Amino acid sequence: MSFAEATAVTREGLGHYTGTIQPGWDIRGVSNGGYLMAIAGRAMAAETDGRRVVSMTGHFVNPGRPGPIDIDVQELKSGRTFTTLRSVMTAEGKPLLSVTGSLSSVGGVGNETSLLQGSPPELPPPDECVKATPSETGEFPPPLTSKIDLRIHPEDVGGTLGNPTGSALFRGWFGLPGEERVDDLAIVLASDSFPPAIFNAGLPMTWTPTLDLTVHVRDPGPHEWLMCSLQTRFVTGGFLEEDGEIWDSKGNLVALSRQLAVVGR
Amino acid sequence: MSFAEATAVTREGLGHYTGTIQPGWDIRGVSNGGYLMAIAGRAMAAETDGRRVVSMTGHFVNPGRPGPIDIDVQELKSGRTFTTLRSVMTAEGKPLLSVTGSLSSVGGVGNETSLLQGSPPELPPPDECVKATPSETGEFPPPLTSKIDLRIHPEDVGGTLGNPTGSALFRGWFGLPGEERVDDLAIVLASDSFPPAIFNAGLPMTWTPTLDLTVHVRDPGPHEWLMCSLQTRFVTGGFLEEDGEIWDSKGNLVALSRQLAVVGR
Repeated sequence: MSFAEATAVTREGLGHYTGTIQPGWDIRGVSNGGYLMAIAGRAMAAETDGRRVVSMTGHFVNPGRPGPIDIDVQELKSGRTFTTLRSVMTAEGKPLLSVTGSLSSVGGVGNETSLLQGSPPELPPPDECVKATPSETGEFPPPLTSKIDLRIHPEDVGGTLGNPTGSALFRGWFGLPGEERVDDLAIVLASDSFPPAIFNAGLPMTWTPTLDLTVHVRDPGPHEWLMCSLQTRFVTGGFLEEDGEIWDSKGNLVALSRQLAVVGR
Repeated sequence: MSFAEATAVTREGLGHYTGTIQPGWDIRGVSNGGYLMAIAGRAMAAETDGRRVVSMTGHFVNPGRPGPIDIDVQELKSGRTFTTLRSVMTAEGKPLLSVTGSLSSVGGVGNETSLLQGSPPELPPPDECVKATPSETGEFPPPLTSKIDLRIHPEDVGGTLGNPTGSALFRGWFGLPGEERVDDLAIVLASDSFPPAIFNAGLPMTWTPTLDLTVHVRDPGPHEWLMCSLQTRFVTGGFLEEDGEIWDSKGNLVALSRQLAVVGR
């Protein structure tokens, strides 16, 4: 099942959509947050007649698990360039997440760049990186890795093997299997698809539930391979951020992301 | 009128609040986005019995101007540690912004730090920085600067005088006048109170409307002086981000912020 199929939604009425959280897009049975945002994003995009994500924030309130869902979308404003909407995804009436987003008809058009203080991560080609594949136990690496094509920088892979590098960073390639291209909503998924960067920090490895995730898309694609770097700089006050930079293979900035997670207690 | 008074709201019924956008918190007549988020935040906090902001995202859809407003707050989930709510602020029925946030009873408790890759900006004491005061023309610096106590690093002040430093960065102190302390919602205001960092980039100075602003509060205070750095690294695809780091005067991380703005055309 492709990413497009796994995020498909059906319009049931004004602003009301149904969909299905598919099995396999999860970690320990809990569906990936970027995947859930992508499903909500499909409903939000459908309300706009095909505008694409410029900015999207999800706040997560209950874990998502495979099964049917409802998405209620409310348009806040639709202008010439941007449509801003908010949505709530529910399962059996229980809210899973709230998503607010601005979608646009002009994202990435021209792609003119006038300031660029930063550059893509230095990565070996995908074939020389370590492809993440699901563990037989269903634990780590999670089943999600069978749905995407994730290639981790050999220098960063230690954190996935209990052998942290000491730097809270993962770099790698993100793509989709086969011929499927990475669209704006797969970019949202990409920003949440690497192992937590703190796995490389040498801190105790604990569950770090995400409170919220924001993705700012500079170029909605479609893209083939994305170069990603995910980094945590501050674990303080009981929280940590994970900042993502996502680039295309030509060195153009595709997206910035940031999530806030709770440090396990 | 204090910040607390200028952001006060009245509960009119279940999840429904009224308030007033006060004059003087604006730039060219358009109210500051962080100020509007703080008013919405007062209503959201009131629904939680006094929990404080951990994470708050505002999406801006219409400019706010002085006058009466309504705020409708919807609780998504209230748990032992976090309450997540969303709200819409309207003026005469027209939506100004949507705010989603997670508030907590435990933010900043303990303030334990286990990873800190970064440090506060190097700033001279407030008295040796340049205090921003409103221009007589009502243009720049804006009237907002009379409501807060903003002290800009002498090395960065060029961008406010048409003499950019070449680096898209403002560093400085943020406080409130008199004896008022900086609470969680004033931290949100702080993140949006400096001149746009690109004023120091040497790019054409244009209006850069904010699409959305997220603030992650690690220590809700109250604080006296905050050390702030606001930076733009990427102007590309028609958009720019502004990333804020906010620290207390002892060198503890107080908040991270990020906004996405549209590059003027």
